[in-house]
Amino acid sequence: MSKIARVELTPVAFADPPLLNVVGVHEPFALRTIVQVWTDDGLVGLGETYAADDHLARLRAVADVLPGLDIFDVNGLRQRVSDVLTSGGGAQVGGMLNIQDPVDVVLSPYEVALLDLQGKQLGLPVVDLLGGAVRDEVPFSAYLFYKWAGHPGGAPDAWGEALDPDGIVRQAAKMIGEYGFTAIKLKGGVFPPAQEAEAVRALAEAFPEHKLRIDPNCAWTVDTSVQVARELTGVLEYLEDPTPGIDGMAAVARQTEIPLATNMCVIAFAHLKPAVLADAVQVVLSDHHYWGGLRRSQLLAGICDTFGMGLSMHSNSHLGISLAAMTHLAAATPNLTYACDTHYPWKTEDVIKPGVLAFESGSVRVPGGPGLGVELDADALGELHEQYLACGIRRRDDTTYMRTIDPEFSPNTARW
Amino acid sequence: MSKIARVELTPVAFADPPLLNVVGVHEPFALRTIVQVWTDDGLVGLGETYAADDHLARLRAVADVLPGLDIFDVNGLRQRVSDVLTSGGGAQVGGMLNIQDPVDVVLSPYEVALLDLQGKQLGLPVVDLLGGAVRDEVPFSAYLFYKWAGHPGGAPDAWGEALDPDGIVRQAAKMIGEYGFTAIKLKGGVFPPAQEAEAVRALAEAFPEHKLRIDPNCAWTVDTSVQVARELTGVLEYLEDPTPGIDGMAAVARQTEIPLATNMCVIAFAHLKPAVLADAVQVVLSDHHYWGGLRRSQLLAGICDTFGMGLSMHSNSHLGISLAAMTHLAAATPNLTYACDTHYPWKTEDVIKPGVLAFESGSVRVPGGPGLGVELDADALGELHEQYLACGIRRRDDTTYMRTIDPEFSPNTARW
Repeated sequence: MSKIARVELTPVAFADPPLLNVVGVHEPFALRTIVQVWTDDGLVGLGETYAADDHLARLRAVADVLPGLDIFDVNGLRQRVSDVLTSGGGAQVGGMLNIQDPVDVVLSPYEVALLDLQGKQLGLPVVDLLGGAVRDEVPFSAYLFYKWAGHPGGAPDAWGEALDPDGIVRQAAKMIGEYGFTAIKLKGGVFPPAQEAEAVRALAEAFPEHKLRIDPNCAWTVDTSVQVARELTGVLEYLEDPTPGIDGMAAVARQTEIPLATNMCVIAFAHLKPAVLADAVQVVLSDHHYWGGLRRSQLLAGICDTFGMGLSMHSNSHLGISLAAMTHLAAATPNLTYACDTHYPWKTEDVIKPGVLAFESGSVRVPGGPGLGVELDADALGELHEQYLACGIRRRDDTTYMRTIDPEFSPNTARW
Repeated sequence: MSKIARVELTPVAFADPPLLNVVGVHEPFALRTIVQVWTDDGLVGLGETYAADDHLARLRAVADVLPGLDIFDVNGLRQRVSDVLTSGGGAQVGGMLNIQDPVDVVLSPYEVALLDLQGKQLGLPVVDLLGGAVRDEVPFSAYLFYKWAGHPGGAPDAWGEALDPDGIVRQAAKMIGEYGFTAIKLKGGVFPPAQEAEAVRALAEAFPEHKLRIDPNCAWTVDTSVQVARELTGVLEYLEDPTPGIDGMAAVARQTEIPLATNMCVIAFAHLKPAVLADAVQVVLSDHHYWGGLRRSQLLAGICDTFGMGLSMHSNSHLGISLAAMTHLAAATPNLTYACDTHYPWKTEDVIKPGVLAFESGSVRVPGGPGLGVELDADALGELHEQYLACGIRRRDDTTYMRTIDPEFSPNTARW
């Protein structure tokens, strides 16, 4: 079968609105690395991942050892990644994500690219390689953020300001109007809990049929979490990461009926056993970007099913290759019964040719073409790479950016 | 892609020696069902499973709903199996295996057949569909049994009698001489523990470089298990199912350093959480025949890896299709680090054309042909089916057979 001939890594930057969160505010540009894996017979497989400088360095180190690998040898891929990264060291990929074991996060875009190649060579969509579609359309959620009208010194963006319940409801109305989402997630951890709970109640009133979630990214203490959970029981579908750590989450879980979800205290396979033993979380938010690609995300799904935990899907700012991969994965995962998160509506630029991925009634139809079913737009890739070179950002840092506006700012983790 | 056109189920019987165990003795014939799944474009995929009458009835019920299914739709296959079997009821497939949930055990041969078909259609060996070979040769263990020289009233078989330590060592020498195994498993639960422990020590003396295991199939109490474990510490690689139940195994585990293995208290995904919470077992013996096929056995492997349990492989009496499937699976499973069990040396008949599967230095080379890489021998299949029709056995029942020789016999479970 085909073997890998060469790998091309292209860091890109794309415009990102000033979305507020527990550690600060999104910078004007979000970064991604676009991975192209070429075979000796001229096929190209695509992957997409973070672009923080140390992550990029690891991706490059792995790229050097991939030529010659059979495109079906996913086990061999993981071994090569593991061999290259034995030197250890964590993977601070930016934002709130502190990856302790870099193997799965570096493996991910290459595994996705291999599956894309396998599908292209076999004439099969990736979803078929993953066991077949249990759903043809994958539901996503409206991912709401507190935000400024625009970046300081810049023009207002299309979304406008959202700094109170009314602003959040307006934002939801616009996003649901354009995309048709049937679930809503509010990124919290920005304002005191009472104010954010008020926004959730306003959303519940405005969208009584929609499933609701709030994610304060560990801004709350255990006691605050329990109190907010009490107030929002019957309103929330699940409560995401109210407080830090497996022990903290377990303490909250013992005192609320609302399922607790996480993409902060369970972000690697090593965290699953302690979380299960502590009965800390009821829903795991998977994310193939740090769970080691699509096959290992299926393993996570099977573990959640086996150990009685629900499964949802997390998102960072991403482009179309990732959305395609997320959609194939979700379509082949029977127990992924929650609407998946996506930042997709917040971006205005992409690296793929348009037309394949579209939201209808809040869902994305699984691309039918071979592999991931999406194609790179070479011009767009070049432009976003130029933007990466020009923007100067080499690692996401919401806190430092926030401090250029509010020098007194410090992250809100467990603040309230 | 290709769709299933029809399914052919052929129950077969093959000669089996009088192997003794905790519930009695193997009958003169062991049963299997050979599964052939035909596509609309003329490919055939193979599977092999138990043939107890109620299991066969379930296989037939499922066979009726498979035409039209895409050969890549493993998720859809599981859904159809589940839909047909919602009427519930367990699956007593014979021997010591009491399957509580029949879905995975009925799914298994069909899933294997679909993977065989996928491989044949794509020109890929099954191991590549499972992530690629981490080893080209799969080590198996010498699976020793206490046994009579022959079935009562019949001629002695090639193996002769083994009813004491000397007989077991002779049997090991013959089997290792012919197959080259580097690990040895003794099926116990037949004689008092001191006598079986003596056999283990005799094996250790005769084969000092070989890894050793004993499996009394829950013949012992917790206290006896702890005592035998104490005596055999440093001698055994692992101790298999000394005593019944997750709680019993956990009690033993707390009092020994020898890893405890099981294919009796953890035989379905529902058993994994209680076993993990109780820290009951250190090694799970997988078996794709009841864990739902090869992909779900990979899930089990990932769960063992994630929750810090070792992984080995269990075997019942089986034919070449199963050996091929076991070999592909084991080759693609990085954490399957123990030699796998197999009853293969005990059989003298098969349904596949010879030449593909051979033991060298105790290992089987992964078949390189597309799919499983083995082919049915139509004449042999017909003969073994005639043998099934003639032998009258419709469900394995070692106890009833033993009682025809020793009317007072009752199973030795927790006897000592």
